[in-house]
Amino acid sequence: MVAGRVMVVGGTHGNERNAPWLLEAWRRHPALLRSSGLGLELVLGNPAAHAAGRRYLDQDLNRSFVPALLDAPEPGDRELRRARELLALHGPEGRAPCLVALDLHSTTAAMGNSLVVYGRRPADLALAAGMQQRLGLPIYLHEQDQAQTGYLVERWPCGLVVEVGPVPQGVIQATICRQSQLALEAALEVLAEARCGALRQPVRLEVHRHLGSLDLPRHDDGSPAAVVHPQRQGRDWRSIGAGEPLFLTAEGVTIPFHPQADQADGAVRAVFINEAAYGEKGIALSLTRREAWPVEPAWGQALQGLARNLQTPG
Amino acid sequence: MVAGRVMVVGGTHGNERNAPWLLEAWRRHPALLRSSGLGLELVLGNPAAHAAGRRYLDQDLNRSFVPALLDAPEPGDRELRRARELLALHGPEGRAPCLVALDLHSTTAAMGNSLVVYGRRPADLALAAGMQQRLGLPIYLHEQDQAQTGYLVERWPCGLVVEVGPVPQGVIQATICRQSQLALEAALEVLAEARCGALRQPVRLEVHRHLGSLDLPRHDDGSPAAVVHPQRQGRDWRSIGAGEPLFLTAEGVTIPFHPQADQADGAVRAVFINEAAYGEKGIALSLTRREAWPVEPAWGQALQGLARNLQTPG
Repeated sequence: MVAGRVMVVGGTHGNERNAPWLLEAWRRHPALLRSSGLGLELVLGNPAAHAAGRRYLDQDLNRSFVPALLDAPEPGDRELRRARELLALHGPEGRAPCLVALDLHSTTAAMGNSLVVYGRRPADLALAAGMQQRLGLPIYLHEQDQAQTGYLVERWPCGLVVEVGPVPQGVIQATICRQSQLALEAALEVLAEARCGALRQPVRLEVHRHLGSLDLPRHDDGSPAAVVHPQRQGRDWRSIGAGEPLFLTAEGVTIPFHPQADQADGAVRAVFINEAAYGEKGIALSLTRREAWPVEPAWGQALQGLARNLQTPG
Repeated sequence: MVAGRVMVVGGTHGNERNAPWLLEAWRRHPALLRSSGLGLELVLGNPAAHAAGRRYLDQDLNRSFVPALLDAPEPGDRELRRARELLALHGPEGRAPCLVALDLHSTTAAMGNSLVVYGRRPADLALAAGMQQRLGLPIYLHEQDQAQTGYLVERWPCGLVVEVGPVPQGVIQATICRQSQLALEAALEVLAEARCGALRQPVRLEVHRHLGSLDLPRHDDGSPAAVVHPQRQGRDWRSIGAGEPLFLTAEGVTIPFHPQADQADGAVRAVFINEAAYGEKGIALSLTRREAWPVEPAWGQALQGLARNLQTPG
């Protein structure tokens, strides 16, 4: 593996403004970010969408990193072109290669300061475990969802999403920025430790494993027939039991939660409740199961193997 | 004055979703809205922007109702065309005339359930006073601001804005909908009372009179050099004194509030703090002074004179 840096991305979605604000501040004053001695690439994910103040122009950039799409000839789609460009620039074989991608997002859901990990790559799990050890962040493990693929971080050897909320789209809030920075600095600390071959892993990793997503009830014409129940709004990471309020119709009728067969045993917990951008994806919230996993030494070995190729600044 | 209805508008901004959700619900089930026996026109303000999920397409529809612009020949601007269309349809001399415009908005600022009144038209003040008497809503009196003009409700003989928040753009929340509906029903109750010539006015009206707006500090290139201070975020309607924290720079420096000469005596209160859509207008927050005004009988007479021409349904 060639040597490379850590890519720190903000503004993958153009209407999420907190991380781009941080990137700009760190560019002007590098001393504001504690980088643990690692070489960083600070990257505005989707500059055109950022300029327009929109999540994306043609399609969601953070669903555009699909191998088949990337291989297609001359995409007309602006996000697909940007995805190719980012890989050509900072992909592991890019001109200024990066080995790790840390993608800073915000959400309108009350997720707090949290991580999203895609699948079970050992290095990702080691990084997430180290961050959780430091800050106690909850982790949403997203996997086995054929409807949602093509995430940016999946195209780098190691990477995860920092997801902070609630904050409206288009709004910068100092507390959201502070949380994002804390998460990033924890990640860099873990990576620096791994780079020295001195990674101290925790005993266990707590994840919220993705079970599936629920859409709002809809009329025949596709328009919503209900909204998230006020007793569910803002209660991300909390358990939801069979029969508990889930949605509320315009007529005031409460629609309770009916778990499916594979969701029935043990507490199910909801995440990304009423995230603004997921309405168009048909997602009102996602369901997870909280699980405590023993941390495997192989995860740390994978992260250390990769991190020893991380460059220092300059 | 010809007879007319009450126009209830939602979705004047296409990314404010709560009022359009209510309009759709009331169209399907008219009994869900207590209309106090008044004939209503339920109007989606900017259907094209609503379909696109954006505040507007070409320019802010709620700054497009400027007489000079409306008189210009054949506007190419889509919002200007929509403004003309709304006036032709439901203006006081329109094909299905309306005498009162109630424009339901939401905001990312922590405004609670509130009203915005533009200027000091007697009928508007009577309507606002009656709503405040019923629900205790705070009122933002917007006037003498040459930078912000062309509001929809100003083109109708009587009208005001219901402004509810905080809620992210693109998100429907049951509590926001409930507050919007309560405010609308209170307005209709006041109008129905005025229609019968039986308006009971309160003794006083409390307003927050607009003093001016503040932009974020900016770098030479126009980019923000600070964000709203975390101790100011979410504190709409609260007083802010000289020297109190206002903004926070990326370097962590607190910028205190320096009142101008006309803001120095008595408490100044901030509204629309960190509203997402106002960044492009150069407004980080607006300053007001809270004042208690004696309610004038002439206000009620103006509202009753107008309301006696309000139609019943059908």
